[in-house]
Amino acid sequence: MTKAPALLPEGLRDRLPAQAEATSRVTRALVDAMRAHGYGRVSPPLAEFRETLGGDDDRLTRDLLRFTDPVSQRTLALRPDITRQVGRIATSLLAGAPRPLRLCYAGQVVKLRASQLRPAREMLQVGAELIGSDSVAAAREIVTVAIDALDAAGIGPVTIDFTLPDVVELLANGPLPVAVPVEELQGELDAKDAGALARLGAEAYLPLLRATGPFDQAIAELRAFDTTGVLDARIEALEAIAAPIRGRATLTLDPTERHGFAYQSWFGFSIFVPGQGDIIGRGGSYAIPVGEDREEAAVGFSLYPDPLIDEGLGGEDDAERRIFLPLGHDAAIAAGLRADGWQTVAALSDADDARALGCGFTLGPDGPVEA
Amino acid sequence: MTKAPALLPEGLRDRLPAQAEATSRVTRALVDAMRAHGYGRVSPPLAEFRETLGGDDDRLTRDLLRFTDPVSQRTLALRPDITRQVGRIATSLLAGAPRPLRLCYAGQVVKLRASQLRPAREMLQVGAELIGSDSVAAAREIVTVAIDALDAAGIGPVTIDFTLPDVVELLANGPLPVAVPVEELQGELDAKDAGALARLGAEAYLPLLRATGPFDQAIAELRAFDTTGVLDARIEALEAIAAPIRGRATLTLDPTERHGFAYQSWFGFSIFVPGQGDIIGRGGSYAIPVGEDREEAAVGFSLYPDPLIDEGLGGEDDAERRIFLPLGHDAAIAAGLRADGWQTVAALSDADDARALGCGFTLGPDGPVEA
Repeated sequence: MTKAPALLPEGLRDRLPAQAEATSRVTRALVDAMRAHGYGRVSPPLAEFRETLGGDDDRLTRDLLRFTDPVSQRTLALRPDITRQVGRIATSLLAGAPRPLRLCYAGQVVKLRASQLRPAREMLQVGAELIGSDSVAAAREIVTVAIDALDAAGIGPVTIDFTLPDVVELLANGPLPVAVPVEELQGELDAKDAGALARLGAEAYLPLLRATGPFDQAIAELRAFDTTGVLDARIEALEAIAAPIRGRATLTLDPTERHGFAYQSWFGFSIFVPGQGDIIGRGGSYAIPVGEDREEAAVGFSLYPDPLIDEGLGGEDDAERRIFLPLGHDAAIAAGLRADGWQTVAALSDADDARALGCGFTLGPDGPVEA
Repeated sequence: MTKAPALLPEGLRDRLPAQAEATSRVTRALVDAMRAHGYGRVSPPLAEFRETLGGDDDRLTRDLLRFTDPVSQRTLALRPDITRQVGRIATSLLAGAPRPLRLCYAGQVVKLRASQLRPAREMLQVGAELIGSDSVAAAREIVTVAIDALDAAGIGPVTIDFTLPDVVELLANGPLPVAVPVEELQGELDAKDAGALARLGAEAYLPLLRATGPFDQAIAELRAFDTTGVLDARIEALEAIAAPIRGRATLTLDPTERHGFAYQSWFGFSIFVPGQGDIIGRGGSYAIPVGEDREEAAVGFSLYPDPLIDEGLGGEDDAERRIFLPLGHDAAIAAGLRADGWQTVAALSDADDARALGCGFTLGPDGPVEA
């Protein structure tokens, strides 16, 4: 038996009503929650010049779905990420807007290749960026907004895993110098490879591997390890960020986690939903390049809710509020039902059937009756 | 002076908060109105195989922004239209769903080239498709749903211009045979070229050019012209379709209008907003190919609201409901304000200023006070 040719390219798919409507409900809830915190929505285009999406970064450029634009004769790419576009908006069109500048977004992003864990090449990205500050107060706000948005969309309780992307640099440039480049040390700590640390002559860093896990316990380990106090400010910052969300999320710490935080400055976090293996969001502090020689500080987060929607997030049974309107029904009564939140399904011919068309009710002479 | 290089390719643009949020409000209103009529939302992907988007139709394929997919090694294209994708869904994934099948959609489409009238290459398309029937009842429903959706989004009053795409064929194959191909005759009628009609020996069609304009008057002309009654069913159909929307839209008729209706079967309509030159939507009856030798009847409409949003549709002044939260504010009070529909903007430092951040109010010890 030969397989029928696929109707859609690998990694691209149609969303049928149950999923498309759940996606719409989840997106609305997330965006409304971010807007309630003063984040104005922006919508960058689906495609841009390759340079503005990937810059000189080979890793990013490799991941772009590129094509030649017949109009500009230049290489464009579909956006693999919206955060970078929001940074471009903040430092160009909105360069003159007062800071801190709060922006949010929701839209589809497209990746060149799928991963085994995430077969989708097109996915929904929703997020918020606070531009003009990466202070502790800014980081605390962005984490709180993330939790509020997740809550509003019915996502959770989540686990927030904090990280400190510059912790190794602070130590290596301070009390614990090493003979190898900092990046090498960071890599082995990220891989949690105790043997490699010993081989690098970085045994002093071994206790860092224990400062991982439930937040309070890991913070205590980190504090005990940091005998010189070079990490004091970072530890205090994490505690300040964690304070308003204690009890609303499970908090963990992995101070040397680097994977996915290559662009973060001093603070990062990942969001997990227990029982859902893959990460559903991440965020942190970063710097937006402004021209050749300037940067603007920012904090933000991105959410990728598709896998949760596939598992039923945002779903609701519509049949209960779906009513069949027989031939010759009163148009004004039908309009009244819609205004009351009913979905009406009008008969077009005698052949139309209420139940086949998904209606739990039909409009009788005295109002809705069960179908 | 040299011009700075453009940040974005021609025809692609960023939407800042005022427009992005207006777009979101307009989209929600349109989709909610269509869903209230029982139309389930679907979301096809942004890109597909070129064949499923353009088929063998050269005119369509020329308009596609194409690229080679490194994964499938095949040519993909960005969707220039969502209607065709919905037809594909209806006849593949939803081939077994009961008919009539009601689907709606909202999403971005991308065109290869902009037109002078519409410089945008990426635009919002919102619409509804009723699949499994192109009866008069189906056409009447789809026009009513369009008017309800436009109303809900605050668009209008609109002008609906009806057309009858097969009227010339009915006449030429019936009482008014011509020596030239029907397409040639249709072309000259579409161009309203009386001289050309005379040259084609088609003087008998001249009165059709007068059956154009305000609906009732044009219908009367058409009826007077149709002495053999071959157009009776079409005229009755138009009157049935027009009946429920009289008083809600300005109705006109241009029975030989073909431009933009190449795919429509017996019925089409264009939607205009007075003072906005370009068409903002169109619809009609059509046939979806199913395999090699079968078709499924459908009616539907598509709206392109971007130009209206650019002119202020869906806008509202948020400053009135935007409140500044000074340092040290009570988090529970802030959450209460958000629950009441306020947008809160929290101070991150002493430097933050309520009015600079767009807040009409600030939270005082006794509640909101004008900023």
